[in-house]
Amino acid sequence: MQDVRVVLWGLGAMGGGIGRALAGRQGVQLVGGIAGRPEREGQDLGQVLGLEQPLDVACGTDAETVLRQAAGRMLMHATRSTVAEVEQEILLALDLGYDVISIAEEMAYPAASGGAAAARIHRRALERGRTVLGTGINPGFILDSLILALTAACLEVSSIHARRVNNLAPFGPTVMRSQGVGTTPEEFERGLESGEIVGHVGFPESIRLVAGALGWQVERIEQSREPIIATRQRRGQHITVPAGRVAGCNHTARCYVEGRPVLIMEHPQQIEPEAEGTDTGDFISIKGTPDIDMAIRPEIPGGLGTIALACNMLVAVLKAPPGLTTMPQLPLPRALPADIRQLLAADGG
Amino acid sequence: MQDVRVVLWGLGAMGGGIGRALAGRQGVQLVGGIAGRPEREGQDLGQVLGLEQPLDVACGTDAETVLRQAAGRMLMHATRSTVAEVEQEILLALDLGYDVISIAEEMAYPAASGGAAAARIHRRALERGRTVLGTGINPGFILDSLILALTAACLEVSSIHARRVNNLAPFGPTVMRSQGVGTTPEEFERGLESGEIVGHVGFPESIRLVAGALGWQVERIEQSREPIIATRQRRGQHITVPAGRVAGCNHTARCYVEGRPVLIMEHPQQIEPEAEGTDTGDFISIKGTPDIDMAIRPEIPGGLGTIALACNMLVAVLKAPPGLTTMPQLPLPRALPADIRQLLAADGG
Repeated sequence: MQDVRVVLWGLGAMGGGIGRALAGRQGVQLVGGIAGRPEREGQDLGQVLGLEQPLDVACGTDAETVLRQAAGRMLMHATRSTVAEVEQEILLALDLGYDVISIAEEMAYPAASGGAAAARIHRRALERGRTVLGTGINPGFILDSLILALTAACLEVSSIHARRVNNLAPFGPTVMRSQGVGTTPEEFERGLESGEIVGHVGFPESIRLVAGALGWQVERIEQSREPIIATRQRRGQHITVPAGRVAGCNHTARCYVEGRPVLIMEHPQQIEPEAEGTDTGDFISIKGTPDIDMAIRPEIPGGLGTIALACNMLVAVLKAPPGLTTMPQLPLPRALPADIRQLLAADGG
Repeated sequence: MQDVRVVLWGLGAMGGGIGRALAGRQGVQLVGGIAGRPEREGQDLGQVLGLEQPLDVACGTDAETVLRQAAGRMLMHATRSTVAEVEQEILLALDLGYDVISIAEEMAYPAASGGAAAARIHRRALERGRTVLGTGINPGFILDSLILALTAACLEVSSIHARRVNNLAPFGPTVMRSQGVGTTPEEFERGLESGEIVGHVGFPESIRLVAGALGWQVERIEQSREPIIATRQRRGQHITVPAGRVAGCNHTARCYVEGRPVLIMEHPQQIEPEAEGTDTGDFISIKGTPDIDMAIRPEIPGGLGTIALACNMLVAVLKAPPGLTTMPQLPLPRALPADIRQLLAADGG
């Protein structure tokens, strides 16, 4: 089988990381880069990615032009978070013959944020004989795929409590704003109301993935976002938060089935949680037959994890049946080898 | 879709547990039971399983007769551990139109113990249009599928160290013998030589599953079995071991790739490890980008876990392409709902 011709849409921290991770692989050829920033028009993709060698591929800002000229097969899509923001981008790529792996959080299960867009993407993918997957560390893995994988050892599951505790200290100003880091409690409340403080994007998606795969009928999902008030000074790379101010956002979601909250997810995102005795980690506790208590300490880093998930699903998506798919429908995920040519040539997963 | 007609082959602790777990499900019908013990000939399967109601299905000891009369679709196979012991049973079931889920440890990756038998089973399954899967808690899950799932968050994996520490205290005399519990160190050595003490069955299978899915070329696998000497008295349900005697078998395996031991698995099996300060649990440590350190405490119980894995793969195996398959080739495993009729009716995983 020929090399997979890959186009990157989005060349920021995530899209650029995906590009660097794929650049060295045997069996993958980077053939296009769609940039958001106008100054990248015409720049060599290798240079934009910070590779040692140029790729002799010019970046462009007009997506359709880049996708057509690249004549690629796989789009690695890392632009924005919501289905509403990315639907047209994905439809365009499908129309031009691309499979799509998107790290847009809502694409992990697009029907959670609106069935119409999900149906449109699915229909278009079927028409074009191509496959669309949304993935990432979360949604896409920790609070959905990994939970499901653990339930494989259960005869029956009565409830699930999962918690991802991370440290935002390394992140930049955009993340600080979206989690309200550094605000006063009053500013935090106003930020929630205005929509500037969003917390985690992905709970409804993770919940629908888990509930759907376990055959649970979701009655309702309750979400809450509470400020995490620092009781002593905490430091991030771009901000210092004094005691009394907000160190982050404790975002939780509860999913009710038959009147019971059977699926509880917590994702407190804050700077320097260890400064006040909170360990970071990914924690999954399943009550059932048997109970399972899992901990990953420290948490799997979000940026690296998202880049890895996107890259590692490449062969599975290429081989999947056409349509809009989800992580639980695909073969057990795993790290892709540096040389994927044998996998491309083989039948099945 | 009609109910899945299931036959149980093996009605001991594992096969019986699988039967009880499936008996209550919507979409599954138990239509046959193949017993090893002659006194079960003609007994009602519901009675043998300890169900409240009879199933109006007579157990039999002649496999071919039971399989033919049952006219089933799925065989849940729980007789013995090695491919050599179970090959003819599986071929017979395939010839009579059954898909097969086997908990024979070596069936998790039959090529590890001999390529010829694996090739014969694969060929027969293709001829008959049926699917064969080996699964269980281990091999099948902890030291292979779960490891692979965790690597999905890695851009690169340089080595893996996995450890399953369990407590044999609840198990009976057969397990005590196979792990050398209660022997003197000298008897332990003789037991290893005679083959009566076997340790864990499944390291080569787990290693081949992981290495194969990660694209690693296995150079060699080294295994060692060491006695775990009690330094104080330890108690199991069927045995008490004084200080100085063997409390269990520390079985380890090291897989070399390009001269390096990249995949190390340990499975110390002993009674009452906590009596000497050893916590039980399932531990997976991945060195790579990023590192991942996972712990499940206590360990997932082996018996329940094996029963669950076998039952939970039922729909995936029914829908899989014909042939001999493995866990990493199938969709992400997860707990089956109590009512599987919707899954049976749906397309895909």
